[in-house]
Amino acid sequence: MERSQKLLNYFLSHRSVTNELINKIEEKNYDYKPTETSMPAGKLATHMLTSFYTFARTVKDGNAAVFGEKFESVPQNLSEAAAAYTEKTKDLIYSLTNEELERSIDMKQIFGMELTGSQLLQIAMDHEIHHKGNLFVYVREMGHTDLPMFVSRG
Amino acid sequence: MERSQKLLNYFLSHRSVTNELINKIEEKNYDYKPTETSMPAGKLATHMLTSFYTFARTVKDGNAAVFGEKFESVPQNLSEAAAAYTEKTKDLIYSLTNEELERSIDMKQIFGMELTGSQLLQIAMDHEIHHKGNLFVYVREMGHTDLPMFVSRG
Repeated sequence: MERSQKLLNYFLSHRSVTNELINKIEEKNYDYKPTETSMPAGKLATHMLTSFYTFARTVKDGNAAVFGEKFESVPQNLSEAAAAYTEKTKDLIYSLTNEELERSIDMKQIFGMELTGSQLLQIAMDHEIHHKGNLFVYVREMGHTDLPMFVSRG
Repeated sequence: MERSQKLLNYFLSHRSVTNELINKIEEKNYDYKPTETSMPAGKLATHMLTSFYTFARTVKDGNAAVFGEKFESVPQNLSEAAAAYTEKTKDLIYSLTNEELERSIDMKQIFGMELTGSQLLQIAMDHEIHHKGNLFVYVREMGHTDLPMFVSRG
């Protein structure tokens, strides 16, 4: 299997679960936060969606310029945002060549070092899994008890 | 750098954060759970510690027999449990040879497929990061607001 296809499968095994959780968040709960200092549910979900896209764009572009961009066009509706950003991110990951995955990218401003495309994607995965772990607790606190496994193996 | 040393660094970049969170859980909060159906904090922490050790032992042994073992000797004190299991797991990861990392292991009973040692360790990492993401919310709900980054880069 191509490396990009393997990465796409890995991404989707977690993103599909993220989206399942996001789809359970009703609009009245977009501002829900477990404590005064927590990130609200809607902001957390949007942060996950735009972050992974930003990482994938960085790997594709070979530079971190996209980290400075504002995402003005994120749909207000979280399910729509999840569908749109997942689609854009899938296309990017699937398009990655081995050269792009092995290319070293200057990430000194953000991570204090150079990282290869493939290392950056692992950081993006870890970031997604971390916040999905947060989201599981949020969604359970919203009253949902029928929750998926943390990763989808189908 | 050796593959085992890289994996150890990756493990510790997350486990050190897990342990920082565990050390914030006071004994009176071991039974804390965010909702009626959530895993209690103490059980969640112990599950993380014994799970990673179980995955690492499986990779070392080349079979999943350890998944059937009971861990009778986990210290009741969570900080002690974290220190002890982190040490045992570190030693195991550092001892892994390239052959062990590439060896295919029958995980059909648990995951429905064969997996290489290195694939199993990635599942172990994802599992750790997921539950650490849960734990961040728990610990914030216990009143802690000075929390580490989700991964330690130092």
